[in-house]
Amino acid sequence: MLERIDRINPRLEAYVSVFHDDALAEARRATDELVAHGSRGPLHGIPVAIKDLYDVRGKPTLAGSRVREGHVAAADSEVVSRLRRAGAIIVGKTVTHEFASGVTSPPARNPWNLDRVPGGSSGGSGAAVAADLCMAATGTDTAGSIRIPASVNGVVGLKPTFGRVSKRGVVPLAWSLDHAGPLAKTVFDAALMLEAIAGHDPTDPSSSEEQVTDYAGTLSRGVDGLRVAIVRNWYFDRVNASVAEAIEEAASVFEDLGARVDELRVPHLELSMPIHHTILASEASAYHQPTLRAVPDRYRRGTRMFLEAGELVPATAYVNAQRARELVRQGFREAFSDTDVIIAPSLPTTAGAFGSSKVQIDGAEDITQAYVRLSVPANLAGLPTLSVPCGFHDGLPIGLQIIGKPFEEQTVLRAGHAYERAAGHYMRRPPIG
Amino acid sequence: MLERIDRINPRLEAYVSVFHDDALAEARRATDELVAHGSRGPLHGIPVAIKDLYDVRGKPTLAGSRVREGHVAAADSEVVSRLRRAGAIIVGKTVTHEFASGVTSPPARNPWNLDRVPGGSSGGSGAAVAADLCMAATGTDTAGSIRIPASVNGVVGLKPTFGRVSKRGVVPLAWSLDHAGPLAKTVFDAALMLEAIAGHDPTDPSSSEEQVTDYAGTLSRGVDGLRVAIVRNWYFDRVNASVAEAIEEAASVFEDLGARVDELRVPHLELSMPIHHTILASEASAYHQPTLRAVPDRYRRGTRMFLEAGELVPATAYVNAQRARELVRQGFREAFSDTDVIIAPSLPTTAGAFGSSKVQIDGAEDITQAYVRLSVPANLAGLPTLSVPCGFHDGLPIGLQIIGKPFEEQTVLRAGHAYERAAGHYMRRPPIG
Repeated sequence: MLERIDRINPRLEAYVSVFHDDALAEARRATDELVAHGSRGPLHGIPVAIKDLYDVRGKPTLAGSRVREGHVAAADSEVVSRLRRAGAIIVGKTVTHEFASGVTSPPARNPWNLDRVPGGSSGGSGAAVAADLCMAATGTDTAGSIRIPASVNGVVGLKPTFGRVSKRGVVPLAWSLDHAGPLAKTVFDAALMLEAIAGHDPTDPSSSEEQVTDYAGTLSRGVDGLRVAIVRNWYFDRVNASVAEAIEEAASVFEDLGARVDELRVPHLELSMPIHHTILASEASAYHQPTLRAVPDRYRRGTRMFLEAGELVPATAYVNAQRARELVRQGFREAFSDTDVIIAPSLPTTAGAFGSSKVQIDGAEDITQAYVRLSVPANLAGLPTLSVPCGFHDGLPIGLQIIGKPFEEQTVLRAGHAYERAAGHYMRRPPIG
Repeated sequence: MLERIDRINPRLEAYVSVFHDDALAEARRATDELVAHGSRGPLHGIPVAIKDLYDVRGKPTLAGSRVREGHVAAADSEVVSRLRRAGAIIVGKTVTHEFASGVTSPPARNPWNLDRVPGGSSGGSGAAVAADLCMAATGTDTAGSIRIPASVNGVVGLKPTFGRVSKRGVVPLAWSLDHAGPLAKTVFDAALMLEAIAGHDPTDPSSSEEQVTDYAGTLSRGVDGLRVAIVRNWYFDRVNASVAEAIEEAASVFEDLGARVDELRVPHLELSMPIHHTILASEASAYHQPTLRAVPDRYRRGTRMFLEAGELVPATAYVNAQRARELVRQGFREAFSDTDVIIAPSLPTTAGAFGSSKVQIDGAEDITQAYVRLSVPANLAGLPTLSVPCGFHDGLPIGLQIIGKPFEEQTVLRAGHAYERAAGHYMRRPPIG
């Protein structure tokens, strides 16, 4: 794996740092332990990449920013600590958009086409998983930052329920919207990763005490009788035809597998973007205020403008956004009264051109706006949401979102696994080697 | 009861409206039902007063404000609806400080001394319960507005855990700080009221699904072995000597009853006031913004200034206040690791002079500041907190706070009941008749 990284990463730039010596030493210890005491479980000896927003003991957490220059993490983040306990080998840290606030993750590239972006903000993780530069990776998702790179890199990404995975030791973007979760090659691998990292952490105030269930063990139960809904409002507005077709085909696959597929309306989704922007800008600015005063010039121009604008949001706007957010939550709650999972496009399009701030969807649209608008409702409602490959357009992957009820990750994963095995898109690999 | 209200209310002004005809009709129906089918339970036929912040079907909810002129409630609030189901008779609505934003509730008076204030914002409810103008009443508590009138009127007030009692149909002051709860003559009555009104309400987004337990049935178990803590920091800063002495005596009563009494420090309490003010001002201003634009002159001057100032709070300040609030919550969580209840003064002093904005505690202090500063920590942390009479100074009641862990109302009530029966202050009645 390290040799493959050395060969491919100079072109892909998925990793910001690779822990050659540490990873080799850990791999040797894992081997010795395997021989002497047997396996710790399915992640024993498995090379995992960590988004450079998570603390790894003794390493810098640069978060894609010059603001963090000189930082060294004193301790592992909770997720990294749990991965180590499960036997995983931490191979390196992956590129993120500065402070996770963007969807293109320069300088990382997309392994399906090096002239395309790998999405963001977990773009390095998405590219590394797709290009086989790790077996799985961690990401964070505030506006889609796990699902966007999963979609454009043709891998699986899971944004768990808010509170399901600890965020201790992860640089925050916006505390009420942030989620930590895995990216992996298959739904099965994502389930194994989730099993390792999920569960209550008393040191994270947002961490839930809800019981963790057996995710991988229930994967193969199929979707016979599962109530699947396609939500026609919002999720199909300004979506490229190739993407919409792929979702319709996915719905047929679910029907063929014995699921009931209905159409549904979720009220208030049209409020998602202004609500999300107000909350994101306010919370991010509150976190960054001290460094923004101390070292403003170390931020990239776009990040700094975003954070300084966030300082001008009045508290009343933030409070009203949180109140309106409750309407979105309620809308989903009602929608889920007779539904198990909602399916929708992950993105309205495929990977955009590297270096461009636009994508083409009914004309040019700002790439950030375009990439986050189908993701943010699940961040507002804190719902577990999977992105799984569901086809290709011009050789670039398309992603399917599977959205579930709070803490029903197992249903979302079960649906994703059944679909993935039936559809088979996961078998196509990117042309990089 | 109606005759007593007619005789005493003109002096006390505890009620803003009395439902003579409706209450008599309800009482006759309750009697008929009692004869025909037996009792609905302990509240069957019991006259209860409702703070004029709760909707009562067909009646105006004026919230102490000209802004609400002409309002008529289309439906009962959830609490009123539950009280009716339990058989209670709604006798009338009690005076509140405008929009619950104040601690003196003009024009209501204190039945222990008509030249004193009845506290606020549930001042009418506190005075009505103390003067026997109802058997129990409802209040709301955002910064102490149940416990303050309970303390200065010598009655029992319970601010339940955040989410324990539905707020549907109650005019909000600040949604993340507001609590609905009862005022009553004894802890036993407060337990009966809580039993009637507690429980999940799917129409209130802040309502908890936590199970309701048997509050009245477990009251008499005593406090043998109960772990009681006196918190020395914050709760005894600038407290009049008579109040501090009453709390020490209460601690001795608990010891005599077999409780363990320790001293404890709760960290971060000194942050309570700025945190609370920032959250209160932001949330109240967000709620009032539309009416503040439409009919600014209908607000009292003080309320309008408070709300307009609240519009200037930046979202970053609000977000930081919510983050710091988490520190206060954590501080209590740690304190409760080896403690069942915390005891503290409800207020640093007794009832202030009617018409004065000051009270005397080490010199003059603003009455609002003085009355809320020992209450607000429990609002920030959402903890169940009882105020129970614990003595008198110059003929005016002193209140003891009993603070418990989230959703442990039964422990708080059990401690309050044991103390109340042993100390006997509840037997002294105000000199109004």
